[in-house]
Amino acid sequence: MFEKEYDVIVVGGGHAGAEAAAASANMGSRTLLITMNLQTIGQMSCNPAMGGIAKGQIVREIDALGGYSGIVTDRSAIQFKMLNKSKGPAMWSPRAQNDRMRFAEEWRKMLEETPNVDFYQEMVSGLLVEGDKVVGVRTSLGIDVRSRAVVLTNGTFLNGLIHIGEKQFGGGRAGEKAATGITEQLVDFGFDSGRMKTGTPPRVDGRSLDYSKMIVQPGDEYPEKFSYLDTVVLNEQRDCYMTHTSKMVHDLLREGFDRSPMFNGRIKSIGPRYCPSIEDKIHRFADKDAHQIFVEPEGWHTVEVYVNGFSTSLPEDIQFKALSSVKGFENVKFFRPGYAIEYDYFPPTQLKHTLETKLVKNLYFAGQINGTTGYEEAASQGLMAGINAHLKISEREPFILKRDEAYIGVLIDDLITKGTEEPYRMFTSRAEYRTLLRQDNADLRLTPRSHELGLASEERLKRMEEKQKKSNEFINFFKKTSFAPDEINPILKSVDSALVKQSDKLFKVFSRPRVTMEHMLTLESVSSFVSENELKNEVLEQAEIQVKYAGYIEKEKTNADKLHRLENVKIPDNFDYTKLKSLSFEAREKLEAIRPVTISQASRISGVSPSDISVLLVFLGR
Amino acid sequence: MFEKEYDVIVVGGGHAGAEAAAASANMGSRTLLITMNLQTIGQMSCNPAMGGIAKGQIVREIDALGGYSGIVTDRSAIQFKMLNKSKGPAMWSPRAQNDRMRFAEEWRKMLEETPNVDFYQEMVSGLLVEGDKVVGVRTSLGIDVRSRAVVLTNGTFLNGLIHIGEKQFGGGRAGEKAATGITEQLVDFGFDSGRMKTGTPPRVDGRSLDYSKMIVQPGDEYPEKFSYLDTVVLNEQRDCYMTHTSKMVHDLLREGFDRSPMFNGRIKSIGPRYCPSIEDKIHRFADKDAHQIFVEPEGWHTVEVYVNGFSTSLPEDIQFKALSSVKGFENVKFFRPGYAIEYDYFPPTQLKHTLETKLVKNLYFAGQINGTTGYEEAASQGLMAGINAHLKISEREPFILKRDEAYIGVLIDDLITKGTEEPYRMFTSRAEYRTLLRQDNADLRLTPRSHELGLASEERLKRMEEKQKKSNEFINFFKKTSFAPDEINPILKSVDSALVKQSDKLFKVFSRPRVTMEHMLTLESVSSFVSENELKNEVLEQAEIQVKYAGYIEKEKTNADKLHRLENVKIPDNFDYTKLKSLSFEAREKLEAIRPVTISQASRISGVSPSDISVLLVFLGR
Repeated sequence: MFEKEYDVIVVGGGHAGAEAAAASANMGSRTLLITMNLQTIGQMSCNPAMGGIAKGQIVREIDALGGYSGIVTDRSAIQFKMLNKSKGPAMWSPRAQNDRMRFAEEWRKMLEETPNVDFYQEMVSGLLVEGDKVVGVRTSLGIDVRSRAVVLTNGTFLNGLIHIGEKQFGGGRAGEKAATGITEQLVDFGFDSGRMKTGTPPRVDGRSLDYSKMIVQPGDEYPEKFSYLDTVVLNEQRDCYMTHTSKMVHDLLREGFDRSPMFNGRIKSIGPRYCPSIEDKIHRFADKDAHQIFVEPEGWHTVEVYVNGFSTSLPEDIQFKALSSVKGFENVKFFRPGYAIEYDYFPPTQLKHTLETKLVKNLYFAGQINGTTGYEEAASQGLMAGINAHLKISEREPFILKRDEAYIGVLIDDLITKGTEEPYRMFTSRAEYRTLLRQDNADLRLTPRSHELGLASEERLKRMEEKQKKSNEFINFFKKTSFAPDEINPILKSVDSALVKQSDKLFKVFSRPRVTMEHMLTLESVSSFVSENELKNEVLEQAEIQVKYAGYIEKEKTNADKLHRLENVKIPDNFDYTKLKSLSFEAREKLEAIRPVTISQASRISGVSPSDISVLLVFLGR
Repeated sequence: MFEKEYDVIVVGGGHAGAEAAAASANMGSRTLLITMNLQTIGQMSCNPAMGGIAKGQIVREIDALGGYSGIVTDRSAIQFKMLNKSKGPAMWSPRAQNDRMRFAEEWRKMLEETPNVDFYQEMVSGLLVEGDKVVGVRTSLGIDVRSRAVVLTNGTFLNGLIHIGEKQFGGGRAGEKAATGITEQLVDFGFDSGRMKTGTPPRVDGRSLDYSKMIVQPGDEYPEKFSYLDTVVLNEQRDCYMTHTSKMVHDLLREGFDRSPMFNGRIKSIGPRYCPSIEDKIHRFADKDAHQIFVEPEGWHTVEVYVNGFSTSLPEDIQFKALSSVKGFENVKFFRPGYAIEYDYFPPTQLKHTLETKLVKNLYFAGQINGTTGYEEAASQGLMAGINAHLKISEREPFILKRDEAYIGVLIDDLITKGTEEPYRMFTSRAEYRTLLRQDNADLRLTPRSHELGLASEERLKRMEEKQKKSNEFINFFKKTSFAPDEINPILKSVDSALVKQSDKLFKVFSRPRVTMEHMLTLESVSSFVSENELKNEVLEQAEIQVKYAGYIEKEKTNADKLHRLENVKIPDNFDYTKLKSLSFEAREKLEAIRPVTISQASRISGVSPSDISVLLVFLGR
C-alpha cells in the first residue's frame, strides 16, 4: 500500500509533525505523514495565537530557515501585535491572533502543495526496529510501513488522559481519541518515560459576553507579519478584550478545590509553570485578588471565544459559577469546559543535539513528547528533526544551531543538556545572547545556513541578501556622512541631549540615546538617501538597531566567540567519566547520563561546576 | 451552566441535527445543539456531494421550507449537474459536488448566525425522562440539561463499530469516538432497537492518479443551483472522472472474501441496498465484469479524492491491490482505507408522522437513527423534527407533509408506516405523484405552508409569489394568444408534427410533443412578451413544464384528491383492532403495531388488504 521504503515517516500532524514533514520533503526526502485524523492537521489545540515573547522570535527563525509556520500564521491571522515595542529591539516579539479553522486549512494546503509528502490516516501503535535502528512504523491495523528514519511528534496524545473535576477519560484532545502502544514499546527498548500535564480554558459563546465592561485590546495600527516572504499584511483586524478575576471569583473557585484533580492528588504530573491553571494561580499567589483574562476570538466569523488565563480542570459547575462572576461574563454560555490533560513524554536528555534518540538510531522526537509546551517550541523542534532526519539518511553532517545563533539552538541545547522536569517554555531570559537573537534579523542569521543545506529557497536568500546589502550601505552612509551642527542641534535639543559644536559623522549622534531613525529622516541628506535607494522599512529598522545597539551586539559577539572556543573542545563519544576520580560524584553521574559532545555543553549541565570543567580540560590536554 | 430550561435540545450536529436546530430556533424555540465535536458540525461523513435523483428534489424541498442545506450546498459547491435532463421534468434532479471543508464551515457559520441556537460540546449519554415525557438530557460528565423537547440525531455514532477486514474497533466515524449509553436507556424504556451497517470507500491522493486514462465528467455548461434564494451560481467548476473495475479487479477482491466481515458473518446487520460495497456488487452480480467508479475531488484545493463506487470493508491490503488494478489507479496512494460501520437504529414504526416517538412524549428521532441512509434524507427529517418539536411545545397543530405534497412526506410516511429493514433511501419510484413533486416547483408547493408556520421568510414567500404570478401570466398568454398558420408551420415542420391550416391558440401547439419553449421564443409575440415582462429562466421553465405536462399533472392531482378523501377518514387514537374479527389476523397485528392515523395510512401498511380497508370503512361508518 505504501512505497517500499519511505525516507522519512513523521508520526503526528500537529505543529511539530507538520514542520518535520515539510522540512524533510523540501530537502528531498520521500516523506509520509501519518496522523490519526487528516482533518486535524495543523490544529491549534489550545489558544488561537502564534508568537509572543521569545516565541515570536522562534516563529521568525522557523520562517528564516524555510519552515511554514510563519506563512501559515500570516495567512490566517486576524490580529497582529509587536509586543515590547517600548523596550530594546532584543525584546520586540511579534504575536498574532489566528483564525483557528483557517490556520489548519492553510497548513493542510501547504503540505499538499509540497512535493514528496504523502499522507495517511491511522494510529501508529509501534515502531519497527531492527538492531538498534528504526526501520519504520506499525499501524493499529497492523500495517507495516518501512522508512529510513522516523520522527515521533505525538503531542498530548500518548496515553492522553483528560481530567475535569472528579471525572477522567482517555483522549488526546477534547473529543479526540488517545494514542496507545508507542510508550510501552519505547520503555521496553530502555527509554525513560514520564507524565506531564497541561490544560486549557473553557471555550465560550462570544454572543453571551458584555464587551462594554472589558478593556478593548486592538491590534497594532501598522501591523507587521511573521514571514520574510511576501505574505500579506492585515488591513483589517479583530479586537481582543481584557478583563480580570476578582476576590469573589477566587472564592468561588476555591469552593471546588476539594474536587480538583490538581489538589486531591489525582493529577500527579507537573504542568507548565508559566501557563498555570487559574486554580494554581490563586493557590500560589494567594495574596493577589485579581488575575488578567484575555478574551480572544477564535476566527474572523465565529462567535466562539477563547478565555486566555482561565485554564482549569475544576469541576464544570465550578468553572461556570466562577467565570460567570467575571466582569463581562455575567451571562456567559459555555461551548465546552476547560480541562487538564496528562500525557507521556520522554525526558529529552535521551536525545542528541539533532533530536535523534541516543538509544535508537534514526529515530527522532519533536514537540511535546520532549517535555516542551507551546506551538512554537514544537514547530521548531519538528523543523530541526525533519532537517536532521534527512541529513542523517543522506549521510551528511548534522545541522545544529548554536546558542548564539538562534532561540531554537538555546531550546534544543537546554532540553538535551539540562532536561526538564516541567513543560519547557522559551523565554528571552533563557538566551545568553539575546541582543543577537532578535526577531528582525532571524533571516540574516539563519537563511544563508538553511540555503546552504538546500532548504531555504533561492528567493529567501536573495531577499535576505538584498536586505543585508542595503542595511550595510545605509549604516555605512551614517558612518561616512557628516552633519552640520546647525542641522543636528535642534534634534539633540528636542531629546535633551548635549548639543554639538562642530561637524562630525552622523553615526556618532545617531548612536546617542533617544535619537531615533525618525529624527534622522528629518535630515535632508538621510531622507534623500532613503528615497534614492528605495529603502524599505525593514532596512531602516535594521540599520537603526545595528547603529544604536552596536555596543551591546559587539559585546555579545565577543562572549559568544569565547563560548565557541569551548564548543571546539570535543569530548570523545565513549569517554569514560568513571575513571576521572577528581570529578565530583554528581558531575560524574550527570556527565555519564547526558554524555555532552563538547566542553561547552558539559559546562551547562546543572551540577557540573567550573572546577569539574577544569578537570576535564586538563584531561583533554587543554 | 445552561438555561434553566431550553425549549429544544438537539443531540448531534450532522445533517439532521443541524437542520433540526436551525428550524426550531428560527421558529422561536430556544435551542441547544449538543455535539461530541463542535469542529465537525455539518461534516459530510461519506461522499462530498449533495442531491442526485430524488435526493436533489428533497434538498429543494428543504430549501423551500426554509432549511439551510440548499444554501450551504450552493456556497460550498465545486460542480453542479442537473441529472436526467433528457427525461421529463419529474425526473430532473440537481446534484452538486462540494468542498467538504467549506461545507462544514458554512454550516457552522449559518448556525452561529441563527439567533436562539446555543452550542455545547460533549457526549450525551442519556435522556432525562419524567413519566412518559422527555425533559432533557444527561451528558457524559453527568451534567443535566433540561428542555421541553429533545431531538436525537445520532447518525452512525450509537455504539458505532468500524470494520476493516478482520479488524474491528469502536468509532462513530474513522478517527472519531462512538457514542454510548442512549441505546441501552431507550431499550429499557421499551424501544426496539436494531443494527444497521453502512460503508465508505478509500480516500486517495489525487496526485497519484492518471486522469488521462479516465473519462472526464465535467459539470453543466450552465450550472444551476439549489436554493430559491439568491445564492451565487458557479462560474468555475472542478471536473470529476469516471473509470471502471475489471475482471482482474474483481478477482483480486475475491481473494479477500474469506477475510471479509461481510461474508464471514462478523457483520450481521444489513447495509444500503442501493449503495452497496464493491464486494457486494461483484458477489450479487457475478456475471458483470465491470462496475463504474466515480472519482470525486474533495474540494477546490485539496488533492484528496473520494472513490465513489468502491465502498468496501475488505482488508486494506486487498483494497489496495484491487484498486491499484483499476485503470488510472495504477500508482494509487491511500489517504485511508474504506471501512464498514455498524450502528444502532430504532425501527421507525415507533414514530408518529411528526417524528415524535410514540413511547416517550416530546422526544423526536431524525436521520440515520431512523434507519435511513443519505444526507438529504437525514437533513429533511431533522428539519421536520425541529419544526414539530417547536409546534408541540407551543401547543400548535403538527406539520405533516402529505405524499402528494413532498418527497419529504413520502419519506416520513414510508418510514413510520412500513418501517424499514435496510437503510432507506429515497427514489422517485417511491412517490405516487412524482409529476407533482418536481425540483422546479418545491417553492410553489411548500413555501406558502412554511411561511404560514413562521419558518420560511417573507423574502422566500415574495420570490415564490412573484414566480407563480409571472408563470401564470405567461401560461395565460399562451392560452389566449392566437398564432397564424404561416408563423407556426415552419416550427411544426421542423419537429415533424402535423401542420395546421387555421389559426388557433398558442397553448394548443405548445402542448404538442417535441415543440419546446425554444421554438416558442422564435415567435415575435412570445419573445416580446418575455422581454416586456422581464421573465426569468425559472418562469420560462415553469410555464413550459405546466403547459407541456398539463395532462399528467391534472391526472395526478385527481388521484391525489381521491387519496385525500381517505386521509380525511381518521381512525380514533385508541381504536381497538382486536375487536374487529373480520380483519385478517395479519392486518390486525400490523394495525395494532403501527396504529395508523387515517384510513389512507392504514391502506399503505404491507399486509393490510383492500378488503381489510373496507371492513374498517364500514366500521367507521363510511
